[in-house]
Amino acid sequence: MTYSVAVSGASGYAGGELLRLLADHPEFEVRTVTAHSSAGQPLVSVQPHLRSYTHLTLKETSAETLGGHDLVFLALPHGTSGAVAADLSPDTLVIDCGADHRLESSADWAAFYGGEHHGAWSYGVPELPRLSGTQRERLTGARRIAAPGCNASTVALSLAPGIRAGVIEDRDLVSVLAVGPSGAGKSPKVNLLASELLGSANPYAVGGGHRHIPEIQQALRWAGAADPTISFTPVLVPMSRGILATSTARIVPGTDAAAVRAAWEDAYAGERFVQLLPEGVFPRTSDVLGANTALIGVAIDEAAGRLVVVAAVDNLVKGTAGAAIQSANIALGLAEYTGLPMNGVAP
Amino acid sequence: MTYSVAVSGASGYAGGELLRLLADHPEFEVRTVTAHSSAGQPLVSVQPHLRSYTHLTLKETSAETLGGHDLVFLALPHGTSGAVAADLSPDTLVIDCGADHRLESSADWAAFYGGEHHGAWSYGVPELPRLSGTQRERLTGARRIAAPGCNASTVALSLAPGIRAGVIEDRDLVSVLAVGPSGAGKSPKVNLLASELLGSANPYAVGGGHRHIPEIQQALRWAGAADPTISFTPVLVPMSRGILATSTARIVPGTDAAAVRAAWEDAYAGERFVQLLPEGVFPRTSDVLGANTALIGVAIDEAAGRLVVVAAVDNLVKGTAGAAIQSANIALGLAEYTGLPMNGVAP
Amino acid sequence: MTYSVAVSGASGYAGGELLRLLADHPEFEVRTVTAHSSAGQPLVSVQPHLRSYTHLTLKETSAETLGGHDLVFLALPHGTSGAVAADLSPDTLVIDCGADHRLESSADWAAFYGGEHHGAWSYGVPELPRLSGTQRERLTGARRIAAPGCNASTVALSLAPGIRAGVIEDRDLVSVLAVGPSGAGKSPKVNLLASELLGSANPYAVGGGHRHIPEIQQALRWAGAADPTISFTPVLVPMSRGILATSTARIVPGTDAAAVRAAWEDAYAGERFVQLLPEGVFPRTSDVLGANTALIGVAIDEAAGRLVVVAAVDNLVKGTAGAAIQSANIALGLAEYTGLPMNGVAP
Amino acid sequence: MTYSVAVSGASGYAGGELLRLLADHPEFEVRTVTAHSSAGQPLVSVQPHLRSYTHLTLKETSAETLGGHDLVFLALPHGTSGAVAADLSPDTLVIDCGADHRLESSADWAAFYGGEHHGAWSYGVPELPRLSGTQRERLTGARRIAAPGCNASTVALSLAPGIRAGVIEDRDLVSVLAVGPSGAGKSPKVNLLASELLGSANPYAVGGGHRHIPEIQQALRWAGAADPTISFTPVLVPMSRGILATSTARIVPGTDAAAVRAAWEDAYAGERFVQLLPEGVFPRTSDVLGANTALIGVAIDEAAGRLVVVAAVDNLVKGTAGAAIQSANIALGLAEYTGLPMNGVAP
Repeated sequence: MTYSVAVSGASGYAGGELLRLLADHPEFEVRTVTAHSSAGQPLVSVQPHLRSYTHLTLKETSAETLGGHDLVFLALPHGTSGAVAADLSPDTLVIDCGADHRLESSADWAAFYGGEHHGAWSYGVPELPRLSGTQRERLTGARRIAAPGCNASTVALSLAPGIRAGVIEDRDLVSVLAVGPSGAGKSPKVNLLASELLGSANPYAVGGGHRHIPEIQQALRWAGAADPTISFTPVLVPMSRGILATSTARIVPGTDAAAVRAAWEDAYAGERFVQLLPEGVFPRTSDVLGANTALIGVAIDEAAGRLVVVAAVDNLVKGTAGAAIQSANIALGLAEYTGLPMNGVAP
Repeated sequence: MTYSVAVSGASGYAGGELLRLLADHPEFEVRTVTAHSSAGQPLVSVQPHLRSYTHLTLKETSAETLGGHDLVFLALPHGTSGAVAADLSPDTLVIDCGADHRLESSADWAAFYGGEHHGAWSYGVPELPRLSGTQRERLTGARRIAAPGCNASTVALSLAPGIRAGVIEDRDLVSVLAVGPSGAGKSPKVNLLASELLGSANPYAVGGGHRHIPEIQQALRWAGAADPTISFTPVLVPMSRGILATSTARIVPGTDAAAVRAAWEDAYAGERFVQLLPEGVFPRTSDVLGANTALIGVAIDEAAGRLVVVAAVDNLVKGTAGAAIQSANIALGLAEYTGLPMNGVAP
Repeated sequence: MTYSVAVSGASGYAGGELLRLLADHPEFEVRTVTAHSSAGQPLVSVQPHLRSYTHLTLKETSAETLGGHDLVFLALPHGTSGAVAADLSPDTLVIDCGADHRLESSADWAAFYGGEHHGAWSYGVPELPRLSGTQRERLTGARRIAAPGCNASTVALSLAPGIRAGVIEDRDLVSVLAVGPSGAGKSPKVNLLASELLGSANPYAVGGGHRHIPEIQQALRWAGAADPTISFTPVLVPMSRGILATSTARIVPGTDAAAVRAAWEDAYAGERFVQLLPEGVFPRTSDVLGANTALIGVAIDEAAGRLVVVAAVDNLVKGTAGAAIQSANIALGLAEYTGLPMNGVAP
Repeated sequence: MTYSVAVSGASGYAGGELLRLLADHPEFEVRTVTAHSSAGQPLVSVQPHLRSYTHLTLKETSAETLGGHDLVFLALPHGTSGAVAADLSPDTLVIDCGADHRLESSADWAAFYGGEHHGAWSYGVPELPRLSGTQRERLTGARRIAAPGCNASTVALSLAPGIRAGVIEDRDLVSVLAVGPSGAGKSPKVNLLASELLGSANPYAVGGGHRHIPEIQQALRWAGAADPTISFTPVLVPMSRGILATSTARIVPGTDAAAVRAAWEDAYAGERFVQLLPEGVFPRTSDVLGANTALIGVAIDEAAGRLVVVAAVDNLVKGTAGAAIQSANIALGLAEYTGLPMNGVAP
C-alpha cells in the first residue's frame, strides 16, 4: 500500500529534510508540499537540492491543501501547528516537527514557551528507555506524534539508560553541545550569518533557559528520575548540521564499571538507529551526517567521579525528520526502518 | 538476482563512498572488503560512519580475496590496479576508480603519470556527449570500466555539449575549480591538514600540469574537438567534498544565444543525473552533496564574449563512486539509476 | 602630531575593520564612531572583538557628529556617502569605503549602480601600475579618496602589470574568485546564512553584471588597456574573509617568458604590501588574513597559451580598510606603512 | 634598548605565531630562527604568511645557534627543551612553549607524560589569581618561564577566581571545550586532516587522561583548592584556532549571586588581557582571534545549581605565544602590554 503524504513548512530546513528522506521511502508518496511566503513557487526553486521533486509546486498551508492525505508532516513555527492539526481528521496520522506538542506539563510550557498549551502528543523517540520498556510502545497506532527537539532527544538518549538502571544520579547533570546552525532555521538573523559563525565557536542560552531543558527532564522522568537537574549549554560551531553532546553525570557511589556500561548495552542492544560504540571509541558528527543514526560512546572518568557520555546525531535526521518518519513507520505498523539511512555521509 | 561484490581500497575515501552507496543498492551485495595497512581490522574501525557494515572485516588485497565475485571495485593507488585486474576473470565486471585505465594515449600517460601504461577501459561517464550519441553505449556489456577523474568528468560534462554542437571554440578554454580536499585522499600530508585549509583558499597545480587535463582533452575530442587547450586551476576550499567548476569558452562568432543554450538542453534532456538548471540559476555544491547528480548552469556573457558554465558535483559520488556504480548498472543491464541518490544533503 | 578620526558605519564589517587597524596606528586617534540602527549603544556591544574601544559609544551619522575631525572614514551603504561628504570641510580628509566615488564614467555608474553619480575621487590603491608611474602619486595630498572594491582591486593588481608592459592581451581576460562572505556585509539574508554556506561553494553574478567589472576595466585602462573585456565570476566559499583570485590572460604572441615575469617584478619591486612570490609558489588566503598584504603568483601555461595570475587578499584589509588607511597615510604625508600589518594570521 | 631574540621550532604553529607577534614588538628583534627538518630553508618558505621575515633563513637548533641572544623562545616537541635550555646561560631569558617545565609534581609528570621530569619554571599566566595576589609576581625577574598549555590556562583562568573567593566547590568541576586543531600541531596525522574535521565535531581524550588536567589542578591549588577534580573533554571543531571553554562548578551553598560575580570582577578588574563581560554576555572565539585577550562570561544557573563560565581564547596567542611574550615583558621589566594585540580579527 502507498500512503499519501503532505509536508507543510516544505520551504524550511526541517521540511526539506523530510522531503529528502521521504523520496527514498517505498511506502510513502509525497503529493502535497506547502509553505507560507514561497507558496506558488516550484519546490525546487527554494530547495534546489531536491532534484527528485521538480514536479511539485508549493501551495498555501491550509486545511484544504493538507486534508485528504494519509500522513501530514507539520514543520511550522511554534504556536501554529495546533490550529492546523485541529482541522485534520483524527484518522490522519499527523506528525508535528515543531515544539507545540512535546511537553506534558502546562507549567513547563508556560515557563519556556508561553501562550496556549495544546497538550502533548506521543513523543517520537522510539528507542528512549522508559522505566518499563521504551517509548516505542507508545507510538504504535498513534495518530498524533510530536517529533522531538533535536538537542533534547540527543541528551535524553545519552542519559536515560543510566537513569533507568540507577547507575547515575539524576541531580547535577551537565551537558555541553557543539551544534550546527541548521537547527536554528532558515530565517535570516545576524548571529546566524556565515560571517559570524565561520571560524568561531558561539555559545548561546548560557546559564539555563534553553527550551529543550524541560523536554530533557520530562524524558528522564519517564526513565525514573525523580527531579532531574541539568546544566545545559549549546555552542554553535562551523558545521551546517550535527550535534555532538558531551553529557556528564555523577556515578551512584558503589556502582562498578561493568554495571555502568551494562546500562547502555541493555538499553540499546538490538537497536539499529541508536548504537553504543565499543569501549574507548567515541563518535564524530560526520559519522552520522545525513543518517538516522545516533552513535553513543560512554566513558567512566574515575578521577573525576563522573560518567561521560558523548553522542553524535544529525539534528535534521535522527534529531527531527528521521525521527518523525521512524515514528510514522511504527504508528502505521510498517517495518520501523523503512526508508531510513543508517550510514553517514563522510568524509 | 543478487550480484556479489568486492571492494578493494575499502579503508580510503573512494572505497568508503562505494560502500555507503552499495549499502542501498538492491541488487548488489558486498561480501568482501580489502585494504592494505588496516587489513585484519573491522571495517567500521576505519570507516566509523558505515554502520550497516559492522559484520565485515578488512582482508588483504589479493587475487584470492577479490576472486569469485561478480563485481570488483578497485579503489587503489595509481599504478597498482592493472596487476590486480590481470588476475581476475575476464567475466568479472571490474571497475577501476583509480587513474590507470582512463587515458587512451600512451603519450599522455607517460607525460602526466609515467610508468607502464595499461591501456584504456570503458570510460565511466554515461551521459558524456560524443559526436555520435553518448558514452553510455560504450558501457553496455563492458567488463572493464574506468571510473573518471572527478575534476575531469565535471569539466568534460560542462563543456562537451557546446563542443559537440559547435557553438563554443575548443581552443582557449578556462576552468577554475573550487574543490574539497577529500579528492586528495586520506594519506596524511601537511598541506591537507585542517589547520592549513580551514579559513583559507589554496590553489595547486597552477599553470598546467594537473593530471586531469589530458583526460578532459580526451573527452572533448570524443565530442568533436580537434585540438582543445584548457587553462585548468583547482583551488582547495574549506569543505570536505564537492567541486564547483567554473568553465568559460569563447562563443563561436555568429552563434545566437538560443543555439548556445540548446546545445546543453539537447545533451542532457531526459538525463536524471545531469540536470541543466533554468536560465539565471546556478548550482551550489551543497545541492549535490552525497548525490549522484551533476547540476549545470549556463550563462552567456555578451560583454566578455564568453560562455560561462558552472557545474556542481560531489567528487566522491558523481565524480567517483556513483559514476562507478551507475556504469556498473549499465554494464550489467540493470536500470541505470538503481541504488543511486538524486537529492543532495543540504543544508 | 595626532590626527583626530571619525568612523561612520562603525557597526558594520568594514567599519569594524577600520577600527581594528586604527587602534594600532600611532598617529591616528579615533574620537567618534557612528552608526544607524545601533546608535546609542556601546561600540563593543555590536563589535565585541574590539576590546580596546570599550570607552566609545555609537552616535548618529550626521554632519554634527562627523564634523571637526581631521579624518573621516565613511563605511556607508551605496548612495549615501555623497550627501554626508558634502557637509564636511574640504580640508577634512574623507575616505569613502563605499562604491559611490570609484567610477569616473557616469555611463558605467548608471549601468551598474543607477541613481545619481557623484563623480570619482582619488582611487585608493597606491601600488596600482599606471601607464606612467603608479596610482600612489594621485593620492599625495588628496582630501577625497575612494577606497577600492575588494574584488576589483585584487584583479586589477593581478593584471595591470601585464597590461602596462604589453605582455598580455586586454581582451578575453577571465577571473574566477573564491571569496568569503564578509564582503557582502552584515545585513541578514538567507543566502548568507551559515547553514547555506558551510560545506558549500556558491557562485553568484554569473555571466557578467558584477559591479566590480567596470572598476576593473577602469583600472586596466589606466594601465594602458584600450578596451578590456573580462569574464568575472565570484564564488562564495566557507571562509569568513579572503579573496583568492585566479585570473588568466592570453599572452601576446611572441612574448618570451622572462619578459612576462619581468612585468610583475618591475611593477612590485620595492612594494611592501604587494609581493610577487617566487616562480612556482602561489598564495593562499590564510597567508594574508588580517594583513594589508596582497600576494601574487604568476605562471605561464604554455600548453594553454595563457598566463595565470593567482592573488590572495584579505577583502576587509588590503581590499578595503587597510587600503583606506594606507591611502590616508599617503595623503597626509605620513610613512605609507604606518600602522599597517604585513604578516597574516595563520594557520 | 633592543633585546635580541632567537626562536626555535620556528617552522611550527607556535613558533610561527611567536614570530608574527614579535614582528610588532618594539623592543625585541628576532635575529635567529631554528628548525629541524626544514633547517637551511628560508623561513618564509615554510611560514608563507610571515612576510616581514623574508630575510631570515632557518638554522639548526643547537646551543651555537641559540646562544648569545637576550631571549630564547623554545617551541619544541615534549622532552627536548630541557637539554637545549641547559646549554644556555642562566642570564638568558628562556621561555619554553612546550610542556616540559609546567608541572611542579614529578608524580603528575610521570603519570601524564613519562620520561625524565625537568622541574617547573615560572608559569606564564600573569593574571592567574593565586591565594595571595597573582601569578604575575612570580614572573618578575624570572629567567626561566614555562608558557602554559592552551586548554589548561583557559580553564584555570575561568575557575580560579571562584576557587580563590570560596564561592565554588573544587570537587566535581566539569569543562567541555570546543577547540581548533592548530593546538595539535603541524605533524600530519589522519585524524587532523581537513577531510576528517570539516563539517564535523570530534571529541578526544574522553573520560580523563588529557595532559592538561594536572596543569589545571595545579593552578587551582595555587588559588586555594584542596583537591580539585575535573571532568575535562576537548572537542575538535572546524575552525583553525580558538578555544571556547564551557566550565561549570557547583556553587557553594548559601552563596549569593552578587558574591559569585564579585569573585570574577575582583580577579580581573584592571586586567587588559583578561576581561569579564557584562552579565548576560558571553564570548565567541572569533572575538579573540589573533589577540592576546581572554574573554570570560559568567552565569548562575539557579535551576541546575551550577555556575557556568564561558571563556574564549586564541590557543596560539593568549594560549601560547602571546602568553610567552607577555611573560617575557614582565620578566624584563617592560610594560606588560608591549607589542601585544587586544582586538580580535573578526568576522
